[in-house]
Order: sequence, then structure tokens, then C-alpha cells
Amino acid sequence: MRTPGFSGADLANLLNEAAILAGRRGKQSISVKEIDDSIDRIVAGMEGTAMTDGKSKSLVAYHEVGHAICATLTPGHDPVQKITLLPRGQARGLTWFLPGQDPSLISKGQIFARIVGALGGRAAEEIVFGETEVTSGAASDLQQVTQIARQMVTAFGMSEIGPWALMDPVVQSSDVVLRMMARNSMSEKLLEDIDKTVKSITDKAYDMAKSHIRNNRAAMDKIVEVLLEKETLSGDEFRALLSEFREIPVDNKDVKATPVLAST
Amino acid sequence: MRTPGFSGADLANLLNEAAILAGRRGKQSISVKEIDDSIDRIVAGMEGTAMTDGKSKSLVAYHEVGHAICATLTPGHDPVQKITLLPRGQARGLTWFLPGQDPSLISKGQIFARIVGALGGRAAEEIVFGETEVTSGAASDLQQVTQIARQMVTAFGMSEIGPWALMDPVVQSSDVVLRMMARNSMSEKLLEDIDKTVKSITDKAYDMAKSHIRNNRAAMDKIVEVLLEKETLSGDEFRALLSEFREIPVDNKDVKATPVLAST
Amino acid sequence: MRTPGFSGADLANLLNEAAILAGRRGKQSISVKEIDDSIDRIVAGMEGTAMTDGKSKSLVAYHEVGHAICATLTPGHDPVQKITLLPRGQARGLTWFLPGQDPSLISKGQIFARIVGALGGRAAEEIVFGETEVTSGAASDLQQVTQIARQMVTAFGMSEIGPWALMDPVVQSSDVVLRMMARNSMSEKLLEDIDKTVKSITDKAYDMAKSHIRNNRAAMDKIVEVLLEKETLSGDEFRALLSEFREIPVDNKDVKATPVLAST
Amino acid sequence: MRTPGFSGADLANLLNEAAILAGRRGKQSISVKEIDDSIDRIVAGMEGTAMTDGKSKSLVAYHEVGHAICATLTPGHDPVQKITLLPRGQARGLTWFLPGQDPSLISKGQIFARIVGALGGRAAEEIVFGETEVTSGAASDLQQVTQIARQMVTAFGMSEIGPWALMDPVVQSSDVVLRMMARNSMSEKLLEDIDKTVKSITDKAYDMAKSHIRNNRAAMDKIVEVLLEKETLSGDEFRALLSEFREIPVDNKDVKATPVLAST
Amino acid sequence: MRTPGFSGADLANLLNEAAILAGRRGKQSISVKEIDDSIDRIVAGMEGTAMTDGKSKSLVAYHEVGHAICATLTPGHDPVQKITLLPRGQARGLTWFLPGQDPSLISKGQIFARIVGALGGRAAEEIVFGETEVTSGAASDLQQVTQIARQMVTAFGMSEIGPWALMDPVVQSSDVVLRMMARNSMSEKLLEDIDKTVKSITDKAYDMAKSHIRNNRAAMDKIVEVLLEKETLSGDEFRALLSEFREIPVDNKDVKATPVLAST
Amino acid sequence: MRTPGFSGADLANLLNEAAILAGRRGKQSISVKEIDDSIDRIVAGMEGTAMTDGKSKSLVAYHEVGHAICATLTPGHDPVQKITLLPRGQARGLTWFLPGQDPSLISKGQIFARIVGALGGRAAEEIVFGETEVTSGAASDLQQVTQIARQMVTAFGMSEIGPWALMDPVVQSSDVVLRMMARNSMSEKLLEDIDKTVKSITDKAYDMAKSHIRNNRAAMDKIVEVLLEKETLSGDEFRALLSEFREIPVDNKDVKATPVLAST
Repeated sequence: MRTPGFSGADLANLLNEAAILAGRRGKQSISVKEIDDSIDRIVAGMEGTAMTDGKSKSLVAYHEVGHAICATLTPGHDPVQKITLLPRGQARGLTWFLPGQDPSLISKGQIFARIVGALGGRAAEEIVFGETEVTSGAASDLQQVTQIARQMVTAFGMSEIGPWALMDPVVQSSDVVLRMMARNSMSEKLLEDIDKTVKSITDKAYDMAKSHIRNNRAAMDKIVEVLLEKETLSGDEFRALLSEFREIPVDNKDVKATPVLAST
Repeated sequence: MRTPGFSGADLANLLNEAAILAGRRGKQSISVKEIDDSIDRIVAGMEGTAMTDGKSKSLVAYHEVGHAICATLTPGHDPVQKITLLPRGQARGLTWFLPGQDPSLISKGQIFARIVGALGGRAAEEIVFGETEVTSGAASDLQQVTQIARQMVTAFGMSEIGPWALMDPVVQSSDVVLRMMARNSMSEKLLEDIDKTVKSITDKAYDMAKSHIRNNRAAMDKIVEVLLEKETLSGDEFRALLSEFREIPVDNKDVKATPVLAST
Repeated sequence: MRTPGFSGADLANLLNEAAILAGRRGKQSISVKEIDDSIDRIVAGMEGTAMTDGKSKSLVAYHEVGHAICATLTPGHDPVQKITLLPRGQARGLTWFLPGQDPSLISKGQIFARIVGALGGRAAEEIVFGETEVTSGAASDLQQVTQIARQMVTAFGMSEIGPWALMDPVVQSSDVVLRMMARNSMSEKLLEDIDKTVKSITDKAYDMAKSHIRNNRAAMDKIVEVLLEKETLSGDEFRALLSEFREIPVDNKDVKATPVLAST
Repeated sequence: MRTPGFSGADLANLLNEAAILAGRRGKQSISVKEIDDSIDRIVAGMEGTAMTDGKSKSLVAYHEVGHAICATLTPGHDPVQKITLLPRGQARGLTWFLPGQDPSLISKGQIFARIVGALGGRAAEEIVFGETEVTSGAASDLQQVTQIARQMVTAFGMSEIGPWALMDPVVQSSDVVLRMMARNSMSEKLLEDIDKTVKSITDKAYDMAKSHIRNNRAAMDKIVEVLLEKETLSGDEFRALLSEFREIPVDNKDVKATPVLAST
Repeated sequence: MRTPGFSGADLANLLNEAAILAGRRGKQSISVKEIDDSIDRIVAGMEGTAMTDGKSKSLVAYHEVGHAICATLTPGHDPVQKITLLPRGQARGLTWFLPGQDPSLISKGQIFARIVGALGGRAAEEIVFGETEVTSGAASDLQQVTQIARQMVTAFGMSEIGPWALMDPVVQSSDVVLRMMARNSMSEKLLEDIDKTVKSITDKAYDMAKSHIRNNRAAMDKIVEVLLEKETLSGDEFRALLSEFREIPVDNKDVKATPVLAST
Repeated sequence: MRTPGFSGADLANLLNEAAILAGRRGKQSISVKEIDDSIDRIVAGMEGTAMTDGKSKSLVAYHEVGHAICATLTPGHDPVQKITLLPRGQARGLTWFLPGQDPSLISKGQIFARIVGALGGRAAEEIVFGETEVTSGAASDLQQVTQIARQMVTAFGMSEIGPWALMDPVVQSSDVVLRMMARNSMSEKLLEDIDKTVKSITDKAYDMAKSHIRNNRAAMDKIVEVLLEKETLSGDEFRALLSEFREIPVDNKDVKATPVLAST
């Protein structure tokens, strides 16, 4: 199931999109292909055509495979669903994951794994192309990483600062004025402790991501080679390629596609 | 009596809900069962069906029993009314307490006991499953804990900072701009003292909660086992199970259900 | 005269209330009793019935008598007019004072006496019941204490910070934005000096309040006993009871009720 | 001339008031008396009747004579026009001064003299009645003192901080938002330097005011005695009384009433 | 040309003013005199009559001549166009300068010269009359000085802080909210560095201005004497008087009035 | 292609402008010349006539050639398209660059090169004319430099502060209130680290720019001489002149005009 966060209205919208797509393709009925393409389109925007070959395309490929490898090798991460170089919206490439069964009850280990996975793209850029060649393409990864790491510290009590909600509930609010207010109740000292703790989480996760990249360079080069050729890899194709080089943690395999290996 | 904070309008609404429920159940009159179910529904949202068995359900069970044990073993806490694994609203499980007679006049000891009880869920997660397995499910407990501990320090004069209202009355106000204003009259030094004091309260309470969990592990395992089986335990069933392992402070027993043991 | 802060409109309203009350009581004319009851109702909200006996009621009684004793024994305080356990509005008990002749020209000594009196309730809770039993019932006393002590420092030049208005006149304004502005002109250092000075005033006053309670415990126990029995004591009844145990400073006696002892 | 800051419209209004007053007094034409009374009424509110005798009235008398003496003995201050115990608006007594010829071009020395004069009331309270008896009646003096001392430092470059406008022009603006903005361009260090410098100005002025009071106690007692009797003293009457005890600086005599002594 | 910053609409307005003025003077056509008077009126407000003789008038004369001398002796400053004791708007005297050819491309040296010139008035007050006699009349000079010095540091990269725009472009904006925002991106440390650097610029300029005044006291006394007599001096008259005492830097002479000496 | 950032609507507008221009020039059809002129006009405002000869014009010429040389000699910078002394809008001269193929995916090296290029104008002013002669004309370069350097640190994770988004996504927002909010989540310490890091980037880039100017002074003098004569130089003309003095990095040549040298 790829629609865990969808409301009833979202699902109705999804079926409409799929029906239109099937019509355009001259089909009599909606197949799984139309559903999948419609989900992708709703979540990430319209698909474009791949970049022309060159250093940029290669960099994007390493970036995406970096996400996929770091995610797959960090226990607790959701499994890769597919990797693609077909751009959507602002993104030049995309790695998709299948969310676990209960997305609202997530453990400290799982959250940390997500941070490692999200930093896998930048880590690959830095290790493969060198520190001067890292790109602005990681900006949205970094925003996501920072937001999650902050939540660990300030909302979930998952750091050495302790089991304390460091932000008023309102900070989580979508109301801008309410979020501004949150500053009021915290001392400069506490703000600094939060910043230090968030940084120590992201530093630790980035070190782990760079280790995964360094320790799996041969696998990475191979997978990038195939991805540049095929432009899209399914989760199973990706895992098949990776498993030629090393063992994959059982947890992070695609439980739906490979039901016999369901999480123990 | 389970309705201490209800207004007349709330009570009318409650009776309506109970009447509808009795009608659905084909009953001629409203019984105590309908009243109880209606109170639960009004306070915590619609009841869902329990999670399927697995690690998550077990974690939720330990979390709820953690609340119940820490609350029951800390003198001054309201007695447990029931524990359930049937989710309501956002919550995956719930522990209900019977409020004391005069909820508006609460002592320092009673407030501290509430903090210990509220941290019992997270304490159980950490002791039983390990520090990496603690979950985002404790977020609302942490918010409640922080808010109460702050009130002890800033509004009730119940800390070493002394009998001083550290916030303008307006800070308690529901008006956002007024609450923002409160910052104006406090120095950074005072904000830092408040943060330190709030943290020392929550740290002390969390240590106490972890002690209760460690010292009552056998009782906990047994109660969780029964809860996973029955999905809901009444306060009396819970106390009966717990009293097989250890004595229960007289104060925290259900005074209504056991009138002969009324608080001395 | 009990109406020093009343405007003409307030007085008209007061007479209306008193007339209605006299009508309900089947009286032909308004007596002093109706006037007095109407003043109480306008100032503090509608009267309720006393709490049932128990620890809470006893705590409230000690809290109120604590106010009355600390106020009476600190020179410069307005005299007690009555003490009651009949709740009004949010308050579970009330101690009333007769304001002096010129409420707008108040000396440093008189302001400090008000702070001691306002802290008398909490001081009694702490000395009589112990530090863990102090209650949230003192919250409004603490707000009042903090606001007055701040004014001594920031508006009246009555502290070692010197004869300096530490707040823009606008800070006293009822306009929220103007009050927020006041922050602008003060350095963090000055804000910290203000906080320290306000704290030293409230600490000194709380120590004095606790001394009064400790040094007059026998009188207090006796007065509480009578108050629990009669539920309301007039200022003269209170002073008669207290004078069995110790002398009362001349200033703080009820000048109206005892004109021969009028302040020298 | 007592109307230096009056606009044409103000003058028209003044004449109207004086005409009404003359009518009420059964006069055929407006005399200087009506003009003077109308100016007082427009500037300070309606005149009331004097307080009844007692400690408060005596304190007010010393407060006003304190202003008059400190102003008269500090070179550069405008001359006293009259002292009165008849209250107006919020003020329980008033000391009036005749503004100099060019109120918009004022020197550092003249500004400092104004601060000494404004602190003379509080200084008299403290020296004559003792530190515990100082009253809230000085609040508006303190606000005026602080505002003038701040201007010396932040707008007029009249302190060791140097010839630097420490506030954006907008801070002088009557627009609240613009004034809030001024904070933006200043560091905490600069704010602290401003606060220190303002405090050192007011401390120095308060010391000078207290010296004037201590060194002229006999004159003060005499002038207060006459003031309590007559309730109002003209500037000349005041200076006549004071000159029995000591010489008066030439500058601070009333230039209009004594034209032969016009400032050299 | 005296109209470098005028728009087309401004010029039309100027001609209208000049036409009205010529009409009032009974002239058939607009002469240069009407144009010049109209420019003065538009830029600085309506002309009044000079102050009566006395210390204040003398102080204003020294203040204006201070501007003229400091400006003329600091290389890079625009040349003096005229000095007058006829007040306009708030100003009691005025010194006019002829702007250079390209006012939008101004060098660090030229900006510093403007600061020295603007501080020349206060410097003359302090050196000639003494530190206690400096007046509030310099307030607008100080605002101008501070604003220019800040721009050197924060917008033009003309200080040791380096070639860095320390303010968001929006800070230069006329939109108040945008300017408030600028604070957000700067640390307290950076704000403090800015304040220190601005102060070191103004201190250095004030020292230079005071040197010019001290070193040219005889010339100054002479020019003030003539100015008090004639009430207005043209730039050429001023330079003729000054050149009797010392050489004038070529740059700062009036390039229009003396075309053969055009800047090299 | 010179229109990488243009939307469909922008392109339509461009063609309209070009058609009008062709009409004015009496042409039957739009040529490349009209397109180019229209792009320049849309991006930079209306073209004016060059300044008259003199020191200012020479300074502007060195400033523009400073941009062109620093940009061309820093690997990764977009190639120069043309340099002109014909002013547009506020700018007294302009250096145009041809953007690379994928402006949204930019590397750390490319961003740093842009900072060096943008500082080349001020560097030339300082080296050629001396530190006192640097002008306010660099203000918009400094704003651009600061904004880019900040993004490297706070949005792209391209500094030693690490792969962390130091600003809430909202800070990038065009909504002012949202950007103000961003301040809330950062400690003073973090703000200071950001400022330090941004400064170290701009300092390093400015040192590199000054080196380029010092090491290529002869080439610069020659190119300025030609530019003053011809008023506009194409990228190829500029590169031809520069290559008489030194080799040009392959990357920074105009890839469109010289397709055989396309980036390797």
C-alpha cells in the first residue's frame, strides 16, 4: 500500500487522476500502473524528461543512489520503492520510499535513520566529486534533516536535554504568530543547548552517511551506471544490485514486494 | 462522580449522547454504561479498534501501564479509573484518572505526582525497550509535563525561585499578543533560572518514574500481559493485579469505587 | 467609608443593587447591611456557600488568617475589615481591608506592608502545613505582590536602583503595543537589575511574613478555630481575638469602627 | 509672558476661557487674574480645594518647596512663578516656572538644572521624612527626569558617549512602530552604555538636590510653614522668604517681575 | 547649478514659486535672485527674521561658521554657498553647500569630509563657549552624522569590518517593517562591531573638527563678527575673509563662482 | 541563449519590446540586435549616455573591468558577455555574463567564483585609486555578495558549520513576516557563527579579487584604455585583449560564441 497519509478526498482525487491517465493511454480500465503514476504526480509534481548526459546528470545519479544506499543500510529506515532520474517539480531526480505501517508512532532509531538517509545525497556528492563540487541541489534535504532533528530535541524528548517539550505546543502550529510566540518562554541558554544538540545529531548522522558511501563505493558506481542507462530503478532492482556487493539489513527491504521476508 | 469539570451545557450534551447511544444499542433507558462511554467519547474523541498484535501494540501497552503504575505509586495522584488499548483520536491507548474533589486548589505534592505519572509512559518505553526504541507517542505527555512544571515555577511560586509570579497575569491569557508581551518584563537571567528550575523538576520526576518502573518490573509484565489480552482494565482490576506484587498507597485508590477506604 | 475608589456611576449602581437586595429581603428601605452586601458582591463576585469541612477548608482558613495577621502586624497596612470562608468568584475565602484616606499618595513603607500582607496567606500554608502542601490558591496573591514590587522599583524610585523611572510612561499604559515598546529602551543589564531588586523586596517581605506566622502560631490556631466555626469574622472580632495574645500596632486598627483610637 | 509654547489656536482658546471666567465672576472685562487662572487650568487641569491638614499635606508642602529651592539654587533653571497646595488634576500641589526666552535652544547646563529641580521634591521627602516615607507622588517627576536625561545622552550628544545620535531620528517620532524600530540598530553594549550614562546623570543630580535640601533646611521649614498657612506663594514671595536665609543666583530670579535684574 | 536632486516636477514647482515671488516684488520677470530664494524656501522652509542680539545669537553664529570652516578645510567637501543667521523652519541659522557633480558616486574621503563639516557646529560651541554651554541645536547635525557614518560601515563597505553589506538591502528601504526585519540576520557581536566602528569614525571626525576650530580661532572670531553684522555671507565673502588668515584647499572652493579654479 | 530565467510571459514581453524597437528603427523584421537590446532593457533598465570624461568615468571603467577580470580568472564563473560604460537605471556601467546551462544546480566552487567576480569592482577601485577613493558605487555588489555568501552557509550547507539548514525554509520565503520568524529558532551563538563564517568567505574572496587585480594590472590598464575609447566591449573583444597578457581558464570563455571550446 503506497497511500498511508491519504484522506478519503485524496483517494477520490487519486482515482480521478488515474482514470484520466488511463483514458489518455487508450485503456478501458485503470491498471496499477496508472495508480502508481498518479500517486507520483500528486506527491511530487509533473514528471519531466531526464537531463542530457554530462557531469550534472552523473552528479544527480550519485546523489539519488547516495540516498538509497544510506537509507537501506541504516536499520529502521523505510525500504526504497524506486529511484529515478526523471525530474519532477524542482527535483532533478527522486528516490521514493514505502512508509512503514504506523507512521505516527516512530522510534528514535527510525528518526535517526531518516536523517542518515536524507544526508546520503550530499554525502555522495562530497565523497565522489569532492568538497568544492557539492551543489545547491541538497538544500531541501538539509531543510528536512534540520526540521526532523529539531523535533527529536524539542518535541519528542529524544536527546540528552531530556524528556522535556522545549517548545510550546503552539510552535508546532501552522499559525505564524503562534510560532513566533514560542521564543518568549525560552532563555538564550536553552536555545543554544538546542542548537548544539541538533548539530551533534546531524554531525553524527552525516559521519555515518559518509561511512556508508566510502564503504560501498564499488556498489555505488555499479548502481549509478545502471541508473544512468535505465533512468529508473525499482526498489527490488536496486536491492538486487546492492546485494551483489553486500548483505542488506532485513528490516529495510520492501515488505510488500517481498512478503516472505516480512519484518520480524 | 466522573464529571467535575462539566458545565450544565456539557451535562445536557452528555445526556443527549448517552440517549443516542442507548437507542443504537436497542435499550429502553440510559444505563451507567452509556453515560461512561459518552464521557469517554466527549473527552477523548471517537473510539477505534485496537492495533493488531506486534511490537507496537506491546510498546503502547507498556506505555499505558507505565502511566498507571507511576501514578498509583506516587502519593497525591488521582486514582486510575481505567486503562485501555482501544485508541481514541490521536492516542493509541489511554489511561484514565478520577479527578480529586477540588481540582482548583491543588498542592505542590499533587502537582509533582502528576508530572511523575505523565512521565511514566516514556519511562516504561525506555526501561523496557531501550533508549533507541522510545517513540514519538510521548510528545503530548511531554508538553503536558512541561506546561505543569512551568506553572509551578512561574505562577504558583512552588520552586526555589520563590513566591514570585514570574509572568505577568497576561501570560496566562488566551490572547496571543498579550502572551508575547510577557517577555518584555523579564531579564535573560530570569528566563534562564526558570528554564533550569523547570528542568530540575522534570529531571527529578523522570528519575522517580524510572525507579517505579525498574522496581515494579514483574508486576508490570503481568499487568501488560493481562491488558494485551483484555484490551481494557478497570482501575480496580489494575489495582488488584498490582496489589499481588506490592502495597498500594491508600490515597491513590479509587475513592468512589471503594468508599470504605476514603482518603484520611 | 468603604467606597474610596467608587465613581458616581459606581455609587448609583451600588444603590440599585442594594435596593434590589432590600426588595428581595422584604424590606421597606435599604439598611447598612444591604449596602455592605452589595459592595462585597460588586467587588468580588457572587457569594457561594462555604466548603465542607476537611483539610482544604482548614488550609483556606489558615491562608486567610495568615493575610489578616501579617497585615495587622506590619505597620502602615490598612486595617482588616472582615475575614470570611464564604467563597466569592474564584476565591475560596476572602480577607477584606479598609483603604486609608488618600489611596493615591502611598509611602514606601505602606507599599511594603501590602506586600507582607499579601504573602501572609502562602506563608501560613508553608509554616502550618509544610512546604509540599502549599497550594495553587496563592497564585493571584503572587501576581499582586510581583506587580506592586515592580512598581516600587520601576515607577516610584523606591529601591537602591535610585530615583529613576525605569519604564517609559507608556508601560503603565493600557495599550498593549505601547507596553511592548517599553522594552526597547532598556538594556539586558538594567532588566536584570530590576529583576534582582524586585526579588530582594519579595524575599524580604516573605521572610517577615513567615516570622509573623511563626511568632503568632497560638493566636493563629485560636482564630482559625473560631473562623471555622463562625465562617465570618469582623475586623473587630479578629482584633479582639488577636489582642488576647499580643498587642496590635495602633495604625492598623479599624479607624472607622474605633474612632477614639484614630491614627495619630 | 507665560505663553511661550502656545499656538494661535491655543491663545484663542485661552481668551475664551478667560472671558467665561470673567463672566462667572461678574466682571465687565478680562483682567490679568482671569488670564493667569485660565492658563493654569488649561495646562494642569481644574483646580480643587486644598487637602485637610495632616502629615500628607505637610509632605506635599515639603515636596513642592523642595522643587522650588533646588530649581532656584541651580544656575540656569527657569525662575519660580508660584507654588501652590491647591491640587489640579492628579497633582496634590504644583510649582510653576516661567520658561526662558528661547525654549528650543537649551544648553547642557540648563538641562541638568531642570533635572535637579525635578528631583527636588523627592529629595525633600527623603531628607525631611526619612527614606521609608517617600511617596508615589514623585512618579511623574521621575518620568520627566528620565526622559530628559535620556535625551541628553541619545539625542543631544551631551555625555561622555560623545557627539553621536544614538537613536534613529524616528525614535523621536510620535509613531509607535517607528519608535519600536529604533531598537534594531543598537547593540546590547550600546544600550547598556546609555543606561549607565543616564543613571550617572540622575545620580549626580539627585546628590546635588539632596545637598540643596540639607544645606537649606531652616529656610525650607520657614517657607513650608508660610505655604501651609497661605496655600499659595508667588515667585517673589518665595524668593523674599528664601533670601532671608541665603543669596539667590541672579539668573534664576523672575526676569519679568523684576525687570531691572534681567539676566546679564 | 544648485538643483542637482530636483525632479522635473520639482523644477516646475520651483519656477512657480519664483514667479509668485517676482510678482510680489513687482518685477516683470524672474531673476536669479527669485530662483535662489525659492530654492532656499523649498529646501529649508520659510525664512524668518534674525534673533535679537545676545549670547544665543552669538552661539548660533559660531555654530554656523564652525560648519563652514570645518567643511572648507577638509579636502573633498562641497564648497560653501552661503552662511546666514536668518532662521528657516526649525533652524536658527543655516550654512548652504553646493553639491558636487555626481552626488550618487561619492568616495570614502568625501563622506568623511561631510561628517567633519557636520560636526563643525558642535565643535565650535564646545571650544568657544565651553562644554556646559553646548546646546540642543546640534541635534539634527548629530542625526545626520550618525546616519552617514552607519552607511559607511553597513552599506558601502568603507570600514575595517570589510566589503560586506551588513544590512539586508531592505534596511535601506523606506518600508518600516522591512527595516525592522534587518535585525534578524545579525548577531549581537556584529551589531556591537558596527556600533564600535561607527563611534570610531565619529570620534575621529570630531577630533578633526575641534582641531580646525582651535587652529583657526582668530579667523573664526573675525568671520563671526562680520556675520553678526551682515547676517548673511556668500561663499565668496566667507572664503575671502578666511583666506586673510590661511590658505584654502583648492577642491573646496566654489567651482561655479570661480570656474578658472575648477577641480583638478 | 541569453534567456535562461525567462518565463513564457517574459518571452512574449521580450518579443513585443523587440518588435517596437525594430519599428522605431524602421526595420521590417526583428533582428538579433533588437532582441539583445530588449533583453538588456528589461533586465537592467533604460540605457543612458556615457558620463563625460574625467576621474569618475575612469573609476567606473576600472570598476567594470575589475568585475570582468576577476570573473574570467576564477574557474567556474560564467563567461563575460559584454562590458559597457553606457549607464542603465542606477548603474553607471555594467558587465554582463552569460549564465551556465543549469542555473538551479550550482556548485560551491561556482558560487565562490561569483563572489570573487562581484568583489572585483571594489577591489579594482581600492588597488588602482587607493583606499580613500573607494566609492558608494559598490553598494549593490556588496549586497549581492553578502546574500550569496549567507546562502552558502545557511541554506546550502557549504561551510564548516556543516550540512545543516540554519534557517527555517520560511526564511527563503518572500513573505516578510515569515522571514522575521526565522530568528526565533536560532541562538545568539549560532547567529554569531553564521556571521563569522560569512565574513571569512567574503574576506577570502576579496583577497583573491585583489590578487587578480594586482597580478594583472598591465592588462587592466590596457583594457580600460580601450573601453574608455569604445565605451562597450563584447566578451570576445575583452577576452582577446586579456589573452594578449595571459592565458584564460577554458571554463570561463563564452561557450556559445566559441562552441569548439565547449566545457569539458
